Amino acid sequence: MENKIVTFGEIMMRLNPQGYLRFLQANNFEISFAGGEANVAVSLANFGEKVSFVSKVPTHEIGQASINVLRNFGVDISDVTRGGERLGSYFVEKGASQRASKVIYDRKYSAISLAKKEDFDWDKIFDGASWFHFTGITPALGGELPEICLEACKSAKEKGITISCDINYRSKLWSREEANKVMSTLMPYVDVCIGNEADAKDVFNLKAGDSNIEKGELNKDGYIDVAKQLSEKFNIKTVAFTLRGSISASVNTWAAMLYVNKKVYFSPNYTIQIVDRVGGGDSFSGGLIYSLFNNYEPQKAINFAVAASCLKHTIEHDFNLVSLEEVNSLAAGNASGRVVR
Amino acid sequence: MENKIVTFGEIMMRLNPQGYLRFLQANNFEISFAGGEANVAVSLANFGEKVSFVSKVPTHEIGQASINVLRNFGVDISDVTRGGERLGSYFVEKGASQRASKVIYDRKYSAISLAKKEDFDWDKIFDGASWFHFTGITPALGGELPEICLEACKSAKEKGITISCDINYRSKLWSREEANKVMSTLMPYVDVCIGNEADAKDVFNLKAGDSNIEKGELNKDGYIDVAKQLSEKFNIKTVAFTLRGSISASVNTWAAMLYVNKKVYFSPNYTIQIVDRVGGGDSFSGGLIYSLFNNYEPQKAINFAVAASCLKHTIEHDFNLVSLEEVNSLAAGNASGRVVR
Amino acid sequence: MENKIVTFGEIMMRLNPQGYLRFLQANNFEISFAGGEANVAVSLANFGEKVSFVSKVPTHEIGQASINVLRNFGVDISDVTRGGERLGSYFVEKGASQRASKVIYDRKYSAISLAKKEDFDWDKIFDGASWFHFTGITPALGGELPEICLEACKSAKEKGITISCDINYRSKLWSREEANKVMSTLMPYVDVCIGNEADAKDVFNLKAGDSNIEKGELNKDGYIDVAKQLSEKFNIKTVAFTLRGSISASVNTWAAMLYVNKKVYFSPNYTIQIVDRVGGGDSFSGGLIYSLFNNYEPQKAINFAVAASCLKHTIEHDFNLVSLEEVNSLAAGNASGRVVR
Amino acid sequence: MENKIVTFGEIMMRLNPQGYLRFLQANNFEISFAGGEANVAVSLANFGEKVSFVSKVPTHEIGQASINVLRNFGVDISDVTRGGERLGSYFVEKGASQRASKVIYDRKYSAISLAKKEDFDWDKIFDGASWFHFTGITPALGGELPEICLEACKSAKEKGITISCDINYRSKLWSREEANKVMSTLMPYVDVCIGNEADAKDVFNLKAGDSNIEKGELNKDGYIDVAKQLSEKFNIKTVAFTLRGSISASVNTWAAMLYVNKKVYFSPNYTIQIVDRVGGGDSFSGGLIYSLFNNYEPQKAINFAVAASCLKHTIEHDFNLVSLEEVNSLAAGNASGRVVR
Amino acid sequence: MENKIVTFGEIMMRLNPQGYLRFLQANNFEISFAGGEANVAVSLANFGEKVSFVSKVPTHEIGQASINVLRNFGVDISDVTRGGERLGSYFVEKGASQRASKVIYDRKYSAISLAKKEDFDWDKIFDGASWFHFTGITPALGGELPEICLEACKSAKEKGITISCDINYRSKLWSREEANKVMSTLMPYVDVCIGNEADAKDVFNLKAGDSNIEKGELNKDGYIDVAKQLSEKFNIKTVAFTLRGSISASVNTWAAMLYVNKKVYFSPNYTIQIVDRVGGGDSFSGGLIYSLFNNYEPQKAINFAVAASCLKHTIEHDFNLVSLEEVNSLAAGNASGRVVR
Amino acid sequence: MENKIVTFGEIMMRLNPQGYLRFLQANNFEISFAGGEANVAVSLANFGEKVSFVSKVPTHEIGQASINVLRNFGVDISDVTRGGERLGSYFVEKGASQRASKVIYDRKYSAISLAKKEDFDWDKIFDGASWFHFTGITPALGGELPEICLEACKSAKEKGITISCDINYRSKLWSREEANKVMSTLMPYVDVCIGNEADAKDVFNLKAGDSNIEKGELNKDGYIDVAKQLSEKFNIKTVAFTLRGSISASVNTWAAMLYVNKKVYFSPNYTIQIVDRVGGGDSFSGGLIYSLFNNYEPQKAINFAVAASCLKHTIEHDFNLVSLEEVNSLAAGNASGRVVR
Repeated sequence: MENKIVTFGEIMMRLNPQGYLRFLQANNFEISFAGGEANVAVSLANFGEKVSFVSKVPTHEIGQASINVLRNFGVDISDVTRGGERLGSYFVEKGASQRASKVIYDRKYSAISLAKKEDFDWDKIFDGASWFHFTGITPALGGELPEICLEACKSAKEKGITISCDINYRSKLWSREEANKVMSTLMPYVDVCIGNEADAKDVFNLKAGDSNIEKGELNKDGYIDVAKQLSEKFNIKTVAFTLRGSISASVNTWAAMLYVNKKVYFSPNYTIQIVDRVGGGDSFSGGLIYSLFNNYEPQKAINFAVAASCLKHTIEHDFNLVSLEEVNSLAAGNASGRVVR
Repeated sequence: MENKIVTFGEIMMRLNPQGYLRFLQANNFEISFAGGEANVAVSLANFGEKVSFVSKVPTHEIGQASINVLRNFGVDISDVTRGGERLGSYFVEKGASQRASKVIYDRKYSAISLAKKEDFDWDKIFDGASWFHFTGITPALGGELPEICLEACKSAKEKGITISCDINYRSKLWSREEANKVMSTLMPYVDVCIGNEADAKDVFNLKAGDSNIEKGELNKDGYIDVAKQLSEKFNIKTVAFTLRGSISASVNTWAAMLYVNKKVYFSPNYTIQIVDRVGGGDSFSGGLIYSLFNNYEPQKAINFAVAASCLKHTIEHDFNLVSLEEVNSLAAGNASGRVVR
Repeated sequence: MENKIVTFGEIMMRLNPQGYLRFLQANNFEISFAGGEANVAVSLANFGEKVSFVSKVPTHEIGQASINVLRNFGVDISDVTRGGERLGSYFVEKGASQRASKVIYDRKYSAISLAKKEDFDWDKIFDGASWFHFTGITPALGGELPEICLEACKSAKEKGITISCDINYRSKLWSREEANKVMSTLMPYVDVCIGNEADAKDVFNLKAGDSNIEKGELNKDGYIDVAKQLSEKFNIKTVAFTLRGSISASVNTWAAMLYVNKKVYFSPNYTIQIVDRVGGGDSFSGGLIYSLFNNYEPQKAINFAVAASCLKHTIEHDFNLVSLEEVNSLAAGNASGRVVR
Repeated sequence: MENKIVTFGEIMMRLNPQGYLRFLQANNFEISFAGGEANVAVSLANFGEKVSFVSKVPTHEIGQASINVLRNFGVDISDVTRGGERLGSYFVEKGASQRASKVIYDRKYSAISLAKKEDFDWDKIFDGASWFHFTGITPALGGELPEICLEACKSAKEKGITISCDINYRSKLWSREEANKVMSTLMPYVDVCIGNEADAKDVFNLKAGDSNIEKGELNKDGYIDVAKQLSEKFNIKTVAFTLRGSISASVNTWAAMLYVNKKVYFSPNYTIQIVDRVGGGDSFSGGLIYSLFNNYEPQKAINFAVAASCLKHTIEHDFNLVSLEEVNSLAAGNASGRVVR
Repeated sequence: MENKIVTFGEIMMRLNPQGYLRFLQANNFEISFAGGEANVAVSLANFGEKVSFVSKVPTHEIGQASINVLRNFGVDISDVTRGGERLGSYFVEKGASQRASKVIYDRKYSAISLAKKEDFDWDKIFDGASWFHFTGITPALGGELPEICLEACKSAKEKGITISCDINYRSKLWSREEANKVMSTLMPYVDVCIGNEADAKDVFNLKAGDSNIEKGELNKDGYIDVAKQLSEKFNIKTVAFTLRGSISASVNTWAAMLYVNKKVYFSPNYTIQIVDRVGGGDSFSGGLIYSLFNNYEPQKAINFAVAASCLKHTIEHDFNLVSLEEVNSLAAGNASGRVVR
Repeated sequence: MENKIVTFGEIMMRLNPQGYLRFLQANNFEISFAGGEANVAVSLANFGEKVSFVSKVPTHEIGQASINVLRNFGVDISDVTRGGERLGSYFVEKGASQRASKVIYDRKYSAISLAKKEDFDWDKIFDGASWFHFTGITPALGGELPEICLEACKSAKEKGITISCDINYRSKLWSREEANKVMSTLMPYVDVCIGNEADAKDVFNLKAGDSNIEKGELNKDGYIDVAKQLSEKFNIKTVAFTLRGSISASVNTWAAMLYVNKKVYFSPNYTIQIVDRVGGGDSFSGGLIYSLFNNYEPQKAINFAVAASCLKHTIEHDFNLVSLEEVNSLAAGNASGRVVR
């Protein structure tokens, strides 16, 4: 495969009660599969790119199901290593209005978290690749993964492959200190860094002034300042921040900022009635990688990425199952939701 | 049956994924049956009128199911011709927020679209009838249907039956030129013409000034002007236009205008949180026919019709399953949604 | 059990179509169990209190299921009398936007409504109890229930148990005259009276000035005035009123007022996107009893109760399945609905 | 309507857990509507007969739903009286293998059970009728129903209408003594009596020798003897007995005997893998009435009735939704179950 | 792809009510995708073979969904042509006991049935292929398909690719005469012919003596005789016949015969409790192609194919989702169904 | 609680696709909770005994849900320790006919498997207890559990509590050698040993002659011999063996043998059409403990236990939700499955 995009990370089984039922009411769980880098891979496949997802999953049917669904949406899974015992999983309870959504992770001891360096032959994996994407969750899984990520970055860099990383700090997986230590070894390889203000602060202690993310007030100058610091600290050309305003569990505002070559581009700010917000950040990464990969102008790139992820919030489960046409239509300003017949 | 209302058109199987699932995520489709004129028939039966639906459906169980459901809601199906092979169908994917709803039609080669003139004995069908309703979709299905519609109109006119027609232009079914040609032969028989600004422009090239329907801004003068033109062009006494404002796929505004005897009446404008907007226009027709059939004053008539169709937007599937009491309560101003115990 | 709370009333089977389907569209009903006092019991058990629910239900599986679910959530059912033939039931159709929710009761002739005085040994039931709660629905069920309630109140009072009562006037169950007569015999025993302006007017003919509850306009002075009258009329130290504003079936505002020792405390006013509003008032009672039972300051008490019941509106079915932490978080001002991971 | 068949009785809401779930496991109930005489009406409508169902149901949506479904399948409901408060209901738990199915009735105080004589104008109801069918359940509901049934029988007899009655003794509804007393007043009007050995014994104390219905052993002579006694006792020309062998809750044998003009005809004996056996007896009545109404020879008549009811056991819920073609095919010996494409 | 297997035909949407519900009871249809040659492709992919499915499907989401599911199970879809308007569909109603399953086809005017010769570049399609499979359904779809099939056969033959064909005569699609004419032009290219006695008789008028397929009695000599005639008539080395015994819609016997190089091999005969029998024949083809492709000895080959298709009858929907290990275990005699932990 | 029964072990989340769907087809999993000793506890609570389940589960909602359901059925959970991170889980795929059911465990690292000795205060737990039950799965979970089990047995023995143990060897959890070593330390404390021939052989290398459990042939003498050896080896007074014959995944035979005081009692042998066979062995233990706890005569005891577990096979999920009346009715010979109205 020529000119392919490679993403590397965990794929998990996602279990959620139907509709707005709470965990304690559920007698059925909807089953889907998801993970930061898998979500990005599906976005890119939907947009027509060749994309390969790299991971390790058990050989049993639950493991098989997790990668069948990627294949379903056109993602290449031939570089997924098979083995281990557990597929990580997580439970999602959808919030509404003043009641927050809740996520319970059960991903410890998963096959990927116990993977060994020899499970991945990066030379082979990167054959024909032009872009490599991972998130901060992958090294956070621990074991040999920080080293494996470093190997992957080095290998990619050698081959001239563009590297993008979504910081995606998760306090349940590692402490700020651990994250700082590991991510600081990886960031120097990164060409495109994606995150939000909280990530930059949590992992790299970069502060953004007075913006109040709980209230959804945007502090543009603060964001620009943090992006600049991040860009300079690790010599990263492109930094993108998503800007979420949580009005309630049912309504969010959503925008993003692209900092590239010291210039700043803000997207429009969408007010969204949420169907399922999990995977929202990943859909932004997917949109941004697509637009940068296709050499969009910065303003058009950030607009495309935000339109893509705006639509994700209206789609059940983590994958952003939208087409290029749908994203382009919204990015072009058609947000009326009129029936398409 | 004395004093009955007759509607004529296609009834289709409607298939939609559950909730907000996209087509590509669906493993089940909810099954219902719908069609412009069938939807109107169900509305009228709910309001207590005697109503007969005329169509042609296959004899197999899928055809039978389509008319059983009409019978369920009290519509007379004794004048439905049985035969042909296919029941037309269409797929609906419900949109949310910035993501539009999507409709895929699979109605070609349906039994009704291949019907013959001899399939319908209008003398018998109109026995005891006082009102005849059809939409522009019926002749748009092609084959002998333009002629059949013309026969029906002529027969109705001879018997002194009031004729209503919802223009309902569908570009997937025929070109503007075809529509113009056929509809221009039918409109002279029509007493009550229902449509929206886009219909008038698409089919009869009547322009309504500067209103921007995508944005939901109402241009009252423009609407009045088009209604007047339409009324004069075909000597139609009563013209009604629905006025939809698409704020998003989740929220619409909804109002209508009645032009009767050169006077204009605007309804209140409702802001609606949408459950299912498909069939919204038909529910307006149902409400309007009911109120005109029962000799409501024009302002009361348009208010009733808009209240009826406002409620339809809160009901799953195409049929407007509301009672007279519910419509009257809303038309009287009770929009608080307080629990009725 | 030391220091337990006792609630007494009916538990019914609740049947509702899925989602926003109307009764006439339903082929399945979701089954849950609910009742004013059972709802309060579950709230209190969720908050960690020892609580016993007292009622009478048939021995058959439908009766058993109704109390198993209480046991599930930690409510003691050892004082439920078994016998009779019917479990009362009610049907709920969820409204949306301008379409109101609808409740059809089928609770006549239920086991509890036909219960006899000898079915309940209040001495034994109140052993170890510190609080007794019932609603105006229980005596409204008729038969011997007014007398049974009076016996319970007398027994509780003798033992120094605090008594709370939610007036909860239901015109389908009894006339205003009947309610007035019976409730006037019970109110003198009540320490904490819960209601809304309509209750006070319907049952005790206490008028609240000009507030318009349909429109959701709060008339603070009117509410205070009615609470004062009620407090003085029956010598009730604590009166709490819920203040609902029905913007539509989908959006409500929700607040409450606490009148205690002649002082008045108003909670914040929440705007809620509703998932299921049935049981909203009971969740307020549950929250208020919890906060008073735990000696919260009045302002904190009413804030807790309103936060608890605000969250209830986002939860399917009647029970308010929220934790202390969730209520405290909202009461502390966190209404952003951000995902809790 | 000329030459119509009239059935009279209760229609109830049937609630059953999905599949083989027990009552105590259910969170959803499948909703359908059923009742002995309604089941017969649907059978006859399916076979193409004009059939009118007579009953009394509440005006609310639950009542409306119960008769909409009859209309769905082509039954005339114009003689159903509307009023009362309750629609009777019953719960069904499907058994399997050694575990028996369970039925819990909640039909007391239903609208029909509290109906008054003036609710039914038999002169009008029987206008155009040729056949009248009811079961022993209708008078067993009590109140004025024994009298109403007697009035109906007298009116039918006067008009020369054939009367069929399925004894259908239910010990939960009345004692043997009550049944004997009431049924003995009605049987003299009956032309076609349907039952089983247990019915004859329970109601009329007619004994059938040594057959063991639990074990499914047929004692042909015993059956003939009881049929003869019954025929002679009330001067009934035609007596039909169903012969069920309960091998387990999953497998039954099923046959029937027709005694007509002192001659006896036995049907083939089917071994059935059961999908849903509730309504099995009613489907036999429906088949038998159809075949006698259409003047089938006795052997063909009983074979048709048993084939019809054999198929019912493979259909979910009470209604026997089979076509004439399907019954004829099975009655002709095609029991192979080969796919019909 | 080296050494791949190519199958060519239609893929349809399959719609079936849940469980044993009849069409007239359904409010939901389970959605899956299926077709004779697609079913075979999935079987082979499950067994680990490289397999490419060739067809034509519309570009809309329904078309996309039909091939996504093939991708899910590992089938290569890169040679599926996109275009046309309809995806064919069919409705399945599952029978039980004496009630037969029912299939209603709605496949006319599908994209594949209207495909043109230029839609398929067989040179490219067969690049790297070793085996080509199609069924008699493909040419039966009409239009240019007989010619396209002939082209495909010629191209495959030139490249030395083994050709298998399942006769699969469907009287709804074409007459015996049409089938005979077209199939007689294709059979000379076929190396492996799969069918049953009825196919051979219907299409080629080859008679098999006295076996009674309705009753499930095997007439081994008759089968051998027909296979021999077929083999000789078209010079086909390998002929396989499936032998189904329809005891009822719930229980079938299932076996097969392989005639190869004038020798005959009969498989064991399984008695199967059916979950879903549609696709049973295709799963046999899938198993047989796998075993012949892997050079199994004839007895082992037919045993493998029958074990594979025996298991299919226990799996919902058309695809035979079994693993090599499961088939081998059954073929080795382990039919006990003990839980595999 | 006086005279209570204590069971100790793991409770897991059970996930299974609906009906007969395979893992690879599932988009929903039914959620229930189960585990050998929890299953026994529910059986005993259903039969009216006081029973306490002891385990360790996480504090999060998934952990809470697992014990709520026990509370639902009347099991005391006040001695469940809360803590740890994971609730073990397992996936069940229901087999049919020749296709075996499949279980995939994901129970490693569960809270109970990582529990510490100090998590359980046996003195307190056994206060008021008369019977203690565990299975060989509990020590097989590893960590400190072998020691904890030994402590529990010692504590129970000291208090004169009867101890029952179901050997339940699981090769996925430990080797035969490990099992032998640990179980040999526990068995000397056991009063009632439950197992099957395979357990005795796998764990204690006691051989049973020639019986072929795959084929379901009973070798009575062999069973007696093994029971005798086991009884003598560990000085166990009562040994019970279940005897399963696997005809297919859909049909099993089921019986048991009780060896007590050197006498042998065989139950009747049931042929069962299976709904869900997981938990079948545990339901036998539940029935046996009940009957021994209530001092049934040996023959009556083993008959009760087998009748109870026969019924379990007809019930979805692991818990045996049957009443005493239902078991007694079957044990008394009523296996006809006639509808109970």
